Amino acid sequence: MTVTGPLGFRAAGVAAGLKSTGAKDVALVVNEGPLDVAAAVFTTNRVFAAPVAWSRQAVADGIARAVVLNSGGANACTGPEGFADTHHTAEYVADLLEVSAGDVLVCSTGLIGERLPVDRLLAGCDAAAGAADADGGPDAALAIMTTDTVPKTVLVTREVSDEHSVDGATSWSVGGMAKGAGMLAPGLATMLCVLTTDAVVDAATADAALRAATATTFDRVDSDGCMSTNDTVILLASGASQVPVTLEELTAAVTEACADLARALVADAEGASHDIAVTVTNASDETAALAVARAVTRSNLFKAAVFGNDPNWGRVLSAVGTVPEDVAPFDALALDVSINGVQVCRAGGVGEPRELVDLASSREVHVEVDLHAGGAQVTVWTNDLTHDYVHENSAYSS
Amino acid sequence: MTVTGPLGFRAAGVAAGLKSTGAKDVALVVNEGPLDVAAAVFTTNRVFAAPVAWSRQAVADGIARAVVLNSGGANACTGPEGFADTHHTAEYVADLLEVSAGDVLVCSTGLIGERLPVDRLLAGCDAAAGAADADGGPDAALAIMTTDTVPKTVLVTREVSDEHSVDGATSWSVGGMAKGAGMLAPGLATMLCVLTTDAVVDAATADAALRAATATTFDRVDSDGCMSTNDTVILLASGASQVPVTLEELTAAVTEACADLARALVADAEGASHDIAVTVTNASDETAALAVARAVTRSNLFKAAVFGNDPNWGRVLSAVGTVPEDVAPFDALALDVSINGVQVCRAGGVGEPRELVDLASSREVHVEVDLHAGGAQVTVWTNDLTHDYVHENSAYSS
Repeated sequence: MTVTGPLGFRAAGVAAGLKSTGAKDVALVVNEGPLDVAAAVFTTNRVFAAPVAWSRQAVADGIARAVVLNSGGANACTGPEGFADTHHTAEYVADLLEVSAGDVLVCSTGLIGERLPVDRLLAGCDAAAGAADADGGPDAALAIMTTDTVPKTVLVTREVSDEHSVDGATSWSVGGMAKGAGMLAPGLATMLCVLTTDAVVDAATADAALRAATATTFDRVDSDGCMSTNDTVILLASGASQVPVTLEELTAAVTEACADLARALVADAEGASHDIAVTVTNASDETAALAVARAVTRSNLFKAAVFGNDPNWGRVLSAVGTVPEDVAPFDALALDVSINGVQVCRAGGVGEPRELVDLASSREVHVEVDLHAGGAQVTVWTNDLTHDYVHENSAYSS
Repeated sequence: MTVTGPLGFRAAGVAAGLKSTGAKDVALVVNEGPLDVAAAVFTTNRVFAAPVAWSRQAVADGIARAVVLNSGGANACTGPEGFADTHHTAEYVADLLEVSAGDVLVCSTGLIGERLPVDRLLAGCDAAAGAADADGGPDAALAIMTTDTVPKTVLVTREVSDEHSVDGATSWSVGGMAKGAGMLAPGLATMLCVLTTDAVVDAATADAALRAATATTFDRVDSDGCMSTNDTVILLASGASQVPVTLEELTAAVTEACADLARALVADAEGASHDIAVTVTNASDETAALAVARAVTRSNLFKAAVFGNDPNWGRVLSAVGTVPEDVAPFDALALDVSINGVQVCRAGGVGEPRELVDLASSREVHVEVDLHAGGAQVTVWTNDLTHDYVHENSAYSS
């Protein structure tokens, strides 16, 4: 049920002609309230798209009533004209919904460096505003896809025990949709995501929950090491369930929703044939664990080896060794590496025979690097480097 | 003429059965003096091979008489046994040459995480010591190849004007050989390189010249972002030309030799179809320029686009934007990007039509990123990301 799973939301997805294929390409998500709480996190790329510039300002007050999203064009590196296009889109949607333009967030995804066909986009906004209803979530999820092969949606529902029930409410939920299949790297994975909840929360709680959730989910997906210009994750809260929740409760539910969507992004990454979980254990702290995990997930050589079903642990170690000592203290002669449960490297040297590792039977690969330097642990997900990745990214201008 | 171009050196390359193909796999370079000056730089990877551990110590006194090199195995991540193998090899060659073991440097290249077949290696050392002569440079260059398709050699000769001639000497030279085709990333590119010179220099001068030369050549090759465990560049000086040279003269000649070899590594990178020079101009300083250039040369998406002859400048900008502001100050709305001379991005936005860029006609691609933030300029070389790169690195365990 995606973004329309929680109470208090309408959505739609329509085809406006931005994609040459004729597929749906404009999505609208409307928060009907009673609350109009919103929070968002954005790409940390210094080259960011016009809709990121707009939405970052618009959400700063913790309030939003709607999100309009388009595929078929990123509206990035399009100069002042591109920003005017985003601004115009927000004002147009605001008029349609009879809300303030400053309460309309905008997201775009597609090719960088091309203006959007604004007339078509606005016509799509008309159609989406007319069509938006409580069943429109699935269409919205379709409309934000680019090279995604499947829409990604989630619904996390929490029951309320009788003694905590207010006005007879029995549950609350977090729904969401996401797109992203390439240019996936932390800070965030390249993606758009809209999450909705009918819980009763204030803006500060929504913001804290969303930041905590994305830090341990989307920020730990690193498919191809390339950070995008358009990454946006938005959380809208309607309060329509009438259930007040704590920061801990909201964080847990939003994290569960984000983790589900993040895993779906990895599973649909462009051209990938393996999903690789790199877990670093016994690090001095989380920062160290994350740095080592990212070094491995960014090794083209290791990722190409996994594509070839070759448990080439030397490429894991050579990646681990590139992390500076002040970032991640460890003794190179103490490192252990396991691949799918086989400890192929022990104390920095040869362990079990690499022939014992089976990479061919499953899409999932689990790599564990034990630093023997503390107690922190982190997992980062990535994909293998395949012929199809090269093909898609040499043939598709995005 | 490679390492035997300068006077005072013998070399050989023999087949010892380390490579399953039966190709040459053991090389020896001997400095006949009168000087025994040596300098070396090594990988900065914290996971480094046994021969790196050995040679780093052995060259610390600025003295070496010989270098023994093998392909067919990296002797990395092989524990104390692997170090003993390297030590044994150095002692064995020292006995053959009647020099001290501490004056024999060792280099290995090939698969990580496997012991070397030491009996075969030592038999190869016997054969190489017997065969080494003043014409053996080309054979040595063949014996260090792994996935290289061609040997890489260089000879830089400097004439001496009559008034500077000592004892009738008329010239001096720097010769060299290198291997490396994958796992090419700075600090150094993954490679072995032996340089020789017959100039009269002391150890401090040799060391300073080598460090300066590698910093602006091999350290600016970044084929696939993967730093190796075995990188070694060695300079041996025999003094046999009887021509004393200054630090400036030696640095210039060694830099010329290294630049030639570095360019040859890029041209022979595994599976590449384009050599890409990323030049960053008008940076605040060299560190900033280098950081921006490296960010672009490590973008899989940009490199895949070049393979597809797609001048996708949005992927250049999205890579540039990942560099932190404290590393490289610039205004994202001031950035210009040219590809093969066409300014496709102007002031952070759309410039000339991307259709004007021709990537198909030449293997060389020139990308220029103008930061408009100062006066520093740096060029880093990389390759495109191709089907053949993925194929070679998924099929070849190295």
